[in-house]
Amino acid sequence: MKTLLNHLNWRYATKRMNGEKVPQDKLDYILEAIRLSASSVGLQPYTVLVIENEEVRKEIQKVAYNQPQIVEGSHVIVFAAWEKITEEQIDAYMQHTAAVRNVPLESLEGFRNSILGSVKSRTDEQNFEWAARQTYIALGTGLIAAAEQGVDATPMEGFDPKGLDEVLQLKEKGLRSVSMMTIGYRNKAEDFLATARKVRRSKEELFITIK
Amino acid sequence: MKTLLNHLNWRYATKRMNGEKVPQDKLDYILEAIRLSASSVGLQPYTVLVIENEEVRKEIQKVAYNQPQIVEGSHVIVFAAWEKITEEQIDAYMQHTAAVRNVPLESLEGFRNSILGSVKSRTDEQNFEWAARQTYIALGTGLIAAAEQGVDATPMEGFDPKGLDEVLQLKEKGLRSVSMMTIGYRNKAEDFLATARKVRRSKEELFITIK
Repeated sequence: MKTLLNHLNWRYATKRMNGEKVPQDKLDYILEAIRLSASSVGLQPYTVLVIENEEVRKEIQKVAYNQPQIVEGSHVIVFAAWEKITEEQIDAYMQHTAAVRNVPLESLEGFRNSILGSVKSRTDEQNFEWAARQTYIALGTGLIAAAEQGVDATPMEGFDPKGLDEVLQLKEKGLRSVSMMTIGYRNKAEDFLATARKVRRSKEELFITIK
Repeated sequence: MKTLLNHLNWRYATKRMNGEKVPQDKLDYILEAIRLSASSVGLQPYTVLVIENEEVRKEIQKVAYNQPQIVEGSHVIVFAAWEKITEEQIDAYMQHTAAVRNVPLESLEGFRNSILGSVKSRTDEQNFEWAARQTYIALGTGLIAAAEQGVDATPMEGFDPKGLDEVLQLKEKGLRSVSMMTIGYRNKAEDFLATARKVRRSKEELFITIK
């Protein structure tokens, strides 16, 4: 039986893919993992775009240093954080929570005010940055989900965010792109990283233990 | 066999723990998953502190709104990003990569210059923010690893970062705290969230699909 550590060791940031399409059930699995990802106070202050359309992926490639995996994979998943966090969004979250948990909305008043208080204590830019950080939990979870499904993935920050926002009309949606991941299957012949050893800081370098 | 989706559904941000200690092998497993986490260009620009010491955890609790799980769990894992990113750190990464992959250092010159170029194009604060974002991948991976091991965990942003930096003397180490997670075991009797339904935005709300 494969464990998380097996999946983490198997995966790598795939630079070349072979054009094979990720089947719908595996895509759905990856998206469900992303949907279930943790986020601060559970707000999920982001939208996730799933792009299969090849023409759109070619446009994305143009604003992403022409990286080949964007079109050699079959889907690009873009993590876009909310540009601002509004009272309406927090209220929608409270209503959803009340409905899912079958509790009165009033019982969530303290929770609502605590989130609203934090959000109001920060500037829009700080709130965006806070939202952007949360997308990385979803990105990391998506990478693990893909690996568990035997699907290769490339996490990517290497693109022009404003250019990508224009391609996907994110500004109009109140969103700003943060990161993306392409999914597909590795092209072992073309990708030197496919056989390269994983490089990670040693335990001694990465951790400080206070017993 | 349990899958990632099972683990994601099982876990929740545990607010009350029962004092039981997470055994060393499970802690080591969680830390190894954190160590193997993806990060931008593989730099891992952070240090992870693992605090078992109860006195230190009591000090942490004081700067973290007195949250009980900090002492009711058995370990606190703090993710601290590098305050600045230096040429020396990038060079150390290159030397490590050359050693692990058994390639000449000169072959990594393009990679080195590309990282250095990005880092130099940003302010120290922007580099810290970039590093902070990466820690969320590690945090999310740590949450999944804990769940796979049947260990409960609480991801936390709710603390005074400067206060925590002082408790752990992070400034002297060139670090700034970003987030933490406590690990332990849920106290079902005391934690109303233990039986509450998970609240997540629906597929229709979270995703935009471009076919």
